[in-house]
Amino acid sequence: MSEAERVGPTEDLAEEQELVGSHTLGDNHRILVEPWQVREVGLSQESLAVSESLFTLSNGHIGARGNLDEGDPSGLPGTYLASFYETRPLPYAEAGYGYPESGQTVVNVTDGKLIRLLVDDEPLDLRYGEIISHERVLDLRRGVLERDLVWRSPADKLVRIRSTRLVSLTRRSLLAINYRVEPVDRPLRVVAQSELVANEHTPSRSDDPRVTAAMKDVLKPVDHHADGLSALLIHRTRASKLQLAAAMDHHIFTPNGHSVEAISHHPNWARVSVSTSLQPGEQLRMVKFVSYGWSSQRSMPALRDQVAAALMSARDAHWEGVLEEQERAYEEFWAGADVELDGPVEIQQAVRFNVFHAYQAGARTERRAIAAKGLTGTGYDGHAFWDTEQFVLPLLTVTAPDAANDALRWRLSTLELAKERASTLRLNGAAFPWRTIRGQECSAYWPAGTAAVHVNADVAVAAARHLWWTQDEDFGRECAQPLLVETARLWMSLGHVGADECFHIDGVTGPDEYTAVCDDNIYTNLMAAQNLRSAAYVARRWPAADVDDAEIESWLDAAGRMSMPYNEDKQVHEQCRGFTDWQEWDFERSARDEEYPLLLHAPYFDLYRKQVIKQADLMLALHWCGEAFTDEEKARAFAYYEPITVRDSSLSACTQAVVAAEVGHLDLAAEYLAEAALMDLKDLEHNARDGLHIASMAGGWLALVAGFGGMRSLPERLLFRPQLPPGWHRLRFAVRPKQCRLTVEITAGSVRYALAGDEPLELTHCSGREREDITLQPGEPISRPWTAVEPLTPRPAQPPGRAPVTL
Amino acid sequence: MSEAERVGPTEDLAEEQELVGSHTLGDNHRILVEPWQVREVGLSQESLAVSESLFTLSNGHIGARGNLDEGDPSGLPGTYLASFYETRPLPYAEAGYGYPESGQTVVNVTDGKLIRLLVDDEPLDLRYGEIISHERVLDLRRGVLERDLVWRSPADKLVRIRSTRLVSLTRRSLLAINYRVEPVDRPLRVVAQSELVANEHTPSRSDDPRVTAAMKDVLKPVDHHADGLSALLIHRTRASKLQLAAAMDHHIFTPNGHSVEAISHHPNWARVSVSTSLQPGEQLRMVKFVSYGWSSQRSMPALRDQVAAALMSARDAHWEGVLEEQERAYEEFWAGADVELDGPVEIQQAVRFNVFHAYQAGARTERRAIAAKGLTGTGYDGHAFWDTEQFVLPLLTVTAPDAANDALRWRLSTLELAKERASTLRLNGAAFPWRTIRGQECSAYWPAGTAAVHVNADVAVAAARHLWWTQDEDFGRECAQPLLVETARLWMSLGHVGADECFHIDGVTGPDEYTAVCDDNIYTNLMAAQNLRSAAYVARRWPAADVDDAEIESWLDAAGRMSMPYNEDKQVHEQCRGFTDWQEWDFERSARDEEYPLLLHAPYFDLYRKQVIKQADLMLALHWCGEAFTDEEKARAFAYYEPITVRDSSLSACTQAVVAAEVGHLDLAAEYLAEAALMDLKDLEHNARDGLHIASMAGGWLALVAGFGGMRSLPERLLFRPQLPPGWHRLRFAVRPKQCRLTVEITAGSVRYALAGDEPLELTHCSGREREDITLQPGEPISRPWTAVEPLTPRPAQPPGRAPVTL
Repeated sequence: MSEAERVGPTEDLAEEQELVGSHTLGDNHRILVEPWQVREVGLSQESLAVSESLFTLSNGHIGARGNLDEGDPSGLPGTYLASFYETRPLPYAEAGYGYPESGQTVVNVTDGKLIRLLVDDEPLDLRYGEIISHERVLDLRRGVLERDLVWRSPADKLVRIRSTRLVSLTRRSLLAINYRVEPVDRPLRVVAQSELVANEHTPSRSDDPRVTAAMKDVLKPVDHHADGLSALLIHRTRASKLQLAAAMDHHIFTPNGHSVEAISHHPNWARVSVSTSLQPGEQLRMVKFVSYGWSSQRSMPALRDQVAAALMSARDAHWEGVLEEQERAYEEFWAGADVELDGPVEIQQAVRFNVFHAYQAGARTERRAIAAKGLTGTGYDGHAFWDTEQFVLPLLTVTAPDAANDALRWRLSTLELAKERASTLRLNGAAFPWRTIRGQECSAYWPAGTAAVHVNADVAVAAARHLWWTQDEDFGRECAQPLLVETARLWMSLGHVGADECFHIDGVTGPDEYTAVCDDNIYTNLMAAQNLRSAAYVARRWPAADVDDAEIESWLDAAGRMSMPYNEDKQVHEQCRGFTDWQEWDFERSARDEEYPLLLHAPYFDLYRKQVIKQADLMLALHWCGEAFTDEEKARAFAYYEPITVRDSSLSACTQAVVAAEVGHLDLAAEYLAEAALMDLKDLEHNARDGLHIASMAGGWLALVAGFGGMRSLPERLLFRPQLPPGWHRLRFAVRPKQCRLTVEITAGSVRYALAGDEPLELTHCSGREREDITLQPGEPISRPWTAVEPLTPRPAQPPGRAPVTL
Repeated sequence: MSEAERVGPTEDLAEEQELVGSHTLGDNHRILVEPWQVREVGLSQESLAVSESLFTLSNGHIGARGNLDEGDPSGLPGTYLASFYETRPLPYAEAGYGYPESGQTVVNVTDGKLIRLLVDDEPLDLRYGEIISHERVLDLRRGVLERDLVWRSPADKLVRIRSTRLVSLTRRSLLAINYRVEPVDRPLRVVAQSELVANEHTPSRSDDPRVTAAMKDVLKPVDHHADGLSALLIHRTRASKLQLAAAMDHHIFTPNGHSVEAISHHPNWARVSVSTSLQPGEQLRMVKFVSYGWSSQRSMPALRDQVAAALMSARDAHWEGVLEEQERAYEEFWAGADVELDGPVEIQQAVRFNVFHAYQAGARTERRAIAAKGLTGTGYDGHAFWDTEQFVLPLLTVTAPDAANDALRWRLSTLELAKERASTLRLNGAAFPWRTIRGQECSAYWPAGTAAVHVNADVAVAAARHLWWTQDEDFGRECAQPLLVETARLWMSLGHVGADECFHIDGVTGPDEYTAVCDDNIYTNLMAAQNLRSAAYVARRWPAADVDDAEIESWLDAAGRMSMPYNEDKQVHEQCRGFTDWQEWDFERSARDEEYPLLLHAPYFDLYRKQVIKQADLMLALHWCGEAFTDEEKARAFAYYEPITVRDSSLSACTQAVVAAEVGHLDLAAEYLAEAALMDLKDLEHNARDGLHIASMAGGWLALVAGFGGMRSLPERLLFRPQLPPGWHRLRFAVRPKQCRLTVEITAGSVRYALAGDEPLELTHCSGREREDITLQPGEPISRPWTAVEPLTPRPAQPPGRAPVTL
């Protein structure tokens, strides 16, 4: 493939695509709606931080925000490495037993993206001179970020810069940039300066001066070196003592010769400069390879050699080789993960964008945490939460199982820490942290941290689910078994059998963060029951010396007695015991006074004791533990909880879409789908600048596959309940059950199941509320008619002003 | 009265008293048990901080810890002024809406107690040389602290020092010391140096370096001056901007002439020195007067003149005049407050010690807060809590009504702040702070702060109670009416009528700090009902333009519908909804592993969701809202809650004593009485070093008067249920209902009610569970027989290892 072909679509194509629509991100620029690309036309300084998040490239190990090549201007400069963090003290005005003393914060590592340019005698800076055209394209199919810029310098020199950036899927430590400079009309002298910069200045995100102090100049210089076209910086974090090597090397192509200079005067920066003269039609091309390595244990020379070797290998492959590997790797990913739809092209683009980022976040973490923001920004301090297991892994397990396997094995690697934490909490088994980078609990507000024990079931059930989908015996024995057994023990010590003979789990916090520390949260209870049953299964399948039959029986007994509070008068399940008797929230006031998100306008004291829900909680149980409810119970629960769910969290719309589809409100499901899918592309929560909502992005996929596809993996059985929202003609997606590839294609009134692989697959097809069991043979697709679910209750209203965003 | 008579009892008397018993405080010294005195024999450096707390003198405005005259050695140097505080930022690792941003911390002000002594050429320091004898006597009847010391210097010089210290009840700003030095066997040169020292070094009490920083050198010098025998230091707090003047003046008496020198070189200290020579039998006597003034508003010259005037007046009265005023004031107080008993002398001493300190804490606060530690130490940052209204004011209202009036008018002075806080919390009316010095909420942990809204009912009901006891119309109109009306409005906006037609108050924290944020805490609900009913009464009695009849009716309606959760299976009231269904605490483990206090060994997450109670909660309702329960319900509740109440708070034993007496367990009541009464004298919680437990001290009185006296002030009626514990022969106490003085004297099988005043008094006498209404005429005592309450349930067990302390 020639270089010319790889430059983004021509302006004509852009014009054509524009007819489809666009998202306005700022006053001065737009994101065009195209099925496979996110194309930004123009540039807005105000929304630079948002576009940097959207254009982040990552392989799960390295994350490089979409900062401009030349560094300035920027919203938030950012390059991150999975699990590379600094520790800092957590302050408490009133201390308490078991409060974590130390926090962990993602570190902006040495910036290797920088290529500054001097045009004749003026630095390229888009705040000066004139932008003739500026376009950035995130190519989802190929995993590259393209940039095409024509700039008039203040001295009236026209120059065109094109760059292509990638973070390699096949070379875990590698960031690569293909950077080209051309005069447009007159000859130019140009100097390109490729840099490594450590301890970049970034805006502070905390009011606490100690946090700011702890995170200032966090990288302590260890070594620095430059030679020929290469340079190296080695640093170490001050408190967490992690060592980091960043190195760069280059290929330079010029038509008329050039001079180069590599310097590393300063421990915090190094520079390789190329100077040349160009005629119109001529091009300076600089290929930059950057390699990162870090370790808490390996020696400085070992790290130094590691990054040098990665650079040597990349140099040998050349830009073309590295790019081709990237394209092949993404081609393979999309073959098993793409979702195609005949419906709104905004949704088509958004779901691919979302799947792309969810995959980027987890592709090559290799037993490190997948953070809530992936490696796209510093939001939530770079921490991983329960949403990885409950939203991201359901996508990765069925589309990129190796990535899911890695993520779950990361949890396993923290099992000893989790057992220590359980012991601190006076519990048995393992208690995984609410938020962490390395594995230690970093949550400083226990009612929404320590008390949110459902994270343990989320982890455990994700492992059980992964085991079922992949049938990976090694994973089952090595990973799922210990995770499930130790979390089962947690539940047994946390809960108790009450006078009513039911098993109760009291004083815990469910997913809804506007309710906390209450009894018998149904989501937690039902997930714990799944946890206990799955633990019994793996403990029998892979016996361990310290698990006897009596213990296994006790798990099954507890699972069978799990309490599910129910309000007999209102004929509805309670999110937790007593919930449906609490005072109603004054939604009219909140709408009138523009109080959303409520947590910025009301104390927890007000929120916790009233019937107001931040995010899907009981609805999450309806989705993931649906077999515990009848169709009527689901319909009534949806009708009851919809009008009090305000969606102040990005982790709500996707679940509401799934449940809305199941109870037959397809138009509402489509609206929630749109909100979930467009959360970041439209910056609906006004915080995409801090990084993308990776879990909500995976949730956009769930809304399609579990919502309109109706996919559920019940114990030992796959189920689909295909439907299409009004105006859609087709929805096609692929998943990978049991080492096979299953393609589901829903068209008007009909669905086609096709299997590729070696073994037949048992599945259940639902048409509305009718079920049919099917044995699907490889290579023998089966089609079935479907009818939409007839709703049992009218379409519910949302809280005033909180109806889902429409397209 | 001659000087000689005023020196403490002779050694013979001390020997005699010792026969009665003593409390061992450290290895080297003891506290003797005497009815009217707390005599310390010997000195232990290890327990210096405890004895400093015990020997604190205060008038509610000034508090002077019992530091040695010479300053060194010390446990915790401390001089405090009511409501004189510094502000500091409150840190949060995770911020939340409505969290207080600023804390308040009591300040150790300029130390005026210091008198250093040079004996020949060696400084008096008890760590060197030899202590021949050392005795300190806190004279409860007279309100003075005496010290008598004979010391042999390292150079073998024997010297006797006697000092008498008082903080004047009649001169609010005055601390006075009568200091005498005598050679024992040989002539001596002596130099006495009287000092004022600001910004004394004190041990840090916080791990947070910012707190330490904020409280270091908190007093910023403004002015300093010395002249003749007097000196003055003026400072200002750095952040809270409170200005403080401390001045001293002296009378000097020597037999052979002396030289004096007054210097103030340094803004942080000033010194007046006296040098003389003494023969055996001769005496240097220095009378030191120290005056304090502070203001947030008044000018520096105004403060300077204020303290000068106070000193001049004191100088004119001389030591003898000041002392005589003090003795008269205490005589008057004890006449209406003393409790006499024929029973264990330890209890006799302790109850006087406790009443003395409770009175000291509140006597002259003059519309400032009464802190949890009074002015005896820096514990709890010097904050006032609900215990002032619910434990201290029940004592002060009936024994020192002016002090109680002041304390309630302080609350009134913070009403606007409380209304602002309510508004922040999205509530109507007023929300008083959980902890504060000046009136702003300073609690940084909302589940045990903001959520503990019962403080509002505690304040309001204390005002209603004070009104009923005093019949003070001005107080009713000016103070009780606004306090009750605004708190009533709080409850109306906080609670709601549920589907069961009951009024519910959800998501709040009751007194028990091992349970939080739960629904329908019975204590809170019943106190709120009293609040609402009393608000209706005062709103009708003193109508206000903004309170209409419909609003008053709504209060009475809510009070009448108040929810009281009850477990039908267990036939017992629930501390809060669901409590009796929670998991049981493993008390055996806690006893075995020595885990008390539990909060240092278990997370809130564990404590909150189990049936374990830190302190009286439902029992507090049984005491203060007893009319809401039948006798059988009280007996069953006591039987149920006793075995799960661990008393990790000093605010529990007294209430358990009251309820134990009411349900007929007199021996148990006596044990709890002893624990409550001896909390500080025996340093039972090992934290008396930080200051005394003023509320528990008042609780010791309550245990006698409400416990064995059975006193209750029901709406519009006073009730007594006299009983005596086994082995007691007599209990006599006085209270002041409706401007009269009522004396109750309980002897074996008989009680005598005597009234002094103008009006007859209606009261109810109970013998066991029999009631008799009596009209008592002034000057016409009535005697009645009594029988003990027959217990309906066996004596309950306490948690293992948590039986009350026995004498």
